[in-house]
Amino acid sequence: MTVIEEVESMAKRRGFFWPAAQIYNPVSGFWNYGPLGTKLFNSLISLWKKYWIKDEDAYEINTTNVLPEIVWIASGHTEGFNDKQTLCEKCKMRWRADHLIEEKIKNHQKLEGKSTDELTKIIRENNIICPNCGGKLSDVFVFNLMYDIKVSPTGDIKCYLRPETTQSSVIDFQYVYKSQRAKLPVKIAQIGKSFRNEISPRQCLIRLREFWMAEFQIFFNPENTEIENYEKIKNKKINILPAEFRKEGKEKEVEIEIDEALRKGWIPNKLIAYYLVKVNDFFLDLGFDKKRIRFKELLDEEKAHYSKKHWDFEVYSEDFGWIECVNNAWRTDYDLSRHEKFSKQKLSVFEDNKHILPHLYEPSFGIDRIILNLLLNNWHNDGKRCWLSLKPKLAPYIAAVFPLVKKDGLDTFARKIYENLKKKYDVIYDESDSIGRRYARVDEIGVPIAITIDYDSLKNNTVTIRDRDTTKQERIKISDIETYIEKILEKN
Amino acid sequence: MTVIEEVESMAKRRGFFWPAAQIYNPVSGFWNYGPLGTKLFNSLISLWKKYWIKDEDAYEINTTNVLPEIVWIASGHTEGFNDKQTLCEKCKMRWRADHLIEEKIKNHQKLEGKSTDELTKIIRENNIICPNCGGKLSDVFVFNLMYDIKVSPTGDIKCYLRPETTQSSVIDFQYVYKSQRAKLPVKIAQIGKSFRNEISPRQCLIRLREFWMAEFQIFFNPENTEIENYEKIKNKKINILPAEFRKEGKEKEVEIEIDEALRKGWIPNKLIAYYLVKVNDFFLDLGFDKKRIRFKELLDEEKAHYSKKHWDFEVYSEDFGWIECVNNAWRTDYDLSRHEKFSKQKLSVFEDNKHILPHLYEPSFGIDRIILNLLLNNWHNDGKRCWLSLKPKLAPYIAAVFPLVKKDGLDTFARKIYENLKKKYDVIYDESDSIGRRYARVDEIGVPIAITIDYDSLKNNTVTIRDRDTTKQERIKISDIETYIEKILEKN
Repeated sequence: MTVIEEVESMAKRRGFFWPAAQIYNPVSGFWNYGPLGTKLFNSLISLWKKYWIKDEDAYEINTTNVLPEIVWIASGHTEGFNDKQTLCEKCKMRWRADHLIEEKIKNHQKLEGKSTDELTKIIRENNIICPNCGGKLSDVFVFNLMYDIKVSPTGDIKCYLRPETTQSSVIDFQYVYKSQRAKLPVKIAQIGKSFRNEISPRQCLIRLREFWMAEFQIFFNPENTEIENYEKIKNKKINILPAEFRKEGKEKEVEIEIDEALRKGWIPNKLIAYYLVKVNDFFLDLGFDKKRIRFKELLDEEKAHYSKKHWDFEVYSEDFGWIECVNNAWRTDYDLSRHEKFSKQKLSVFEDNKHILPHLYEPSFGIDRIILNLLLNNWHNDGKRCWLSLKPKLAPYIAAVFPLVKKDGLDTFARKIYENLKKKYDVIYDESDSIGRRYARVDEIGVPIAITIDYDSLKNNTVTIRDRDTTKQERIKISDIETYIEKILEKN
Repeated sequence: MTVIEEVESMAKRRGFFWPAAQIYNPVSGFWNYGPLGTKLFNSLISLWKKYWIKDEDAYEINTTNVLPEIVWIASGHTEGFNDKQTLCEKCKMRWRADHLIEEKIKNHQKLEGKSTDELTKIIRENNIICPNCGGKLSDVFVFNLMYDIKVSPTGDIKCYLRPETTQSSVIDFQYVYKSQRAKLPVKIAQIGKSFRNEISPRQCLIRLREFWMAEFQIFFNPENTEIENYEKIKNKKINILPAEFRKEGKEKEVEIEIDEALRKGWIPNKLIAYYLVKVNDFFLDLGFDKKRIRFKELLDEEKAHYSKKHWDFEVYSEDFGWIECVNNAWRTDYDLSRHEKFSKQKLSVFEDNKHILPHLYEPSFGIDRIILNLLLNNWHNDGKRCWLSLKPKLAPYIAAVFPLVKKDGLDTFARKIYENLKKKYDVIYDESDSIGRRYARVDEIGVPIAITIDYDSLKNNTVTIRDRDTTKQERIKISDIETYIEKILEKN
């Protein structure tokens, strides 16, 4: 089994995640988090909020999934948020043209930015047919990825489920600015669902039709991209693959001090440099290996319509290679100026005796992808056992409490310790099956320590603490358990 | 101005909430929470999680908004989740028949449960016409309130945006049960959005098209409705308006010990009694006056199709009267048995050598309504000033820090105190305008205390603390501020 097969199987069996409506024939691209996945999700969001709301003094807002069509006309999504698709004339299945071509012709030149005509030509020249039934494929056409819904009373208010949360921050920018008596730069954060009518959802939690995003938007004066704390981070290193490398065909990232990247012109200003480093720091704090994270700058033809500069922050796994987990986009004043035009409202601010239409820079986090990559990158199988080396602060439970056997008062004693720890920590109690099987059960879901109560515990008030990663055991006093847990949590 | 007008105006101006897409012509029934509203929302959810997840050892899951049609056929929503509407034959506006009738004929007999024919008859007999254009109204027809969306690839996978979060807990019940090695009763909690195509959204956050729900589901063995902690709560009192009163035309609730209500047969079992009290306790903890909360039992014709017994938990405000904020529904095994039938999967559990199809009881909280009622019930205007008497744990900021004037080092000194408090608490700093205006600004958003730094502060390291509700001031040492805040938080 590959890592993803093992992880997906464990995730479904133990309650990290499973397909939505699994008792029926589920629609692909929709997944639910079970109890353990929700714990991991909550811990991840809690850390995200620390980095991107609390430490940044950002304003958090909480907005609707449904927005009227005009918002998406203004944002450019009705026009630009498309897949190029082809339809089988026989079985009527639809396919993404680029995926079909890439599957047929290995190492094909980049397809981003190709027109429908160009893609049709490639399909014809290579005799590509429907993978489902062998039927003839239609000419390539454009398909919008937003879900539209009709809102009453007359049934004709056309709305869309949002494909990104950004637009609400943009159209609410003025309200946030005024209601909070803010000054530039204004930071707005949002955590919410987004929806895309993906034609081929795949790779488990990676390509979804409904997904969680956490977004941080900074609206700033384009003439002032200085940043207070830049000096503190300027010598930090990131892995980066600049567009200029990629144009020369080089696809290997380099490690570089952010300040040097700035001097080389790979990064346009200190503000963006600062937030690239912050994204990097966040992932290091999540426990990702620094060799498995990087920024890939997008080429002009790869960028979204709103983007002046764009870096995909990618995480590496054996199964999927480099996967973008955070979009870092310099959207300039594109969004505000479009909404200003369509709403006929003034969206600029007046500061320092000038009207300023702020620029928008945004790191936008794909939460589900991060969760999957956390599991993939922390999964271990040495042939004898499987364990998930999640950092303690992300583990679904910080500790498990086991009586060695379910008799002679060991269970009652263990339960007392469990109940006591539960007041303060997320802990789990298990008394069924052999101690070995119980260790295996908590190892695979990433519980950092198992506390076992044996006959000696009754005599001298000690327990054994078994470490998930090393399986080493040590004996400590019951009164020292809390200190032990605190130490683990602090260290990580 | 009425209270709701004052509250809505303050909420929009200060950033509690505002209509989504407000810079355009917003679609009614969609609202966003601004920075202060999001803080209140987060505090409320955090308290909800303590009551309904942590203290209950419930499993939290996190599920999709979009679910395939089969789920809603099985749940009965495609058939039973309707409004009875009438269409103006002239202007094509649609109306809820019951609303039109109630507006025309004050104190009309209950309309719940009336057939479309009966409603049409009432409309004809009373010559009710379109309130918009005076046109003739169509016969009353049934309109489903769910939003349908089409999912690719072939465009024909029909799905719905969920009108309640319950169904995911039901269809995932088996996975939660097995993956967590659970035993009955199994408690599942969810916080998420739901969507209803309301024909006439109104009353600010009360009747919405997209709204937040927090739901607690308990799946239990119908032969065992004993509950461990019942003895601890059996003498607690609630206000209740039982169905038998209402059948006799009595619409005034009575205060009664829960155990007595159980003995009278108003409540069918201890399990339900326990959770009714818990809902009541939760609202008392939120700060609602016990005279302004009650349980109203629904009559047979008022109940949803899945409900055997149902109590609306209602909150009173001058503006809206009694508004349901929590649905407490005994759904029996209706949902599980329907999904068992439609999915052809076994959804019972095997315990004590028996196959048991659990019953479902659910308190389901309308978060937006609770938020609005919190503002309405805590709003005060004595003609001289307005203040919001939110409990400190719900206040958007626990304290405000003001320098008396913005000079002579008072501002620097105040800022230092602010920065220090900010490490631990959610506090706000303000130095602009007169001190009186600053007090007014924090009073109306519910900040419990204002800490003012004056010239004496520089000399003797003291500050004045002004209480939001009484406006009384006292002088304390700077080193005592934290203790003071902790005391406020604990007291409430």
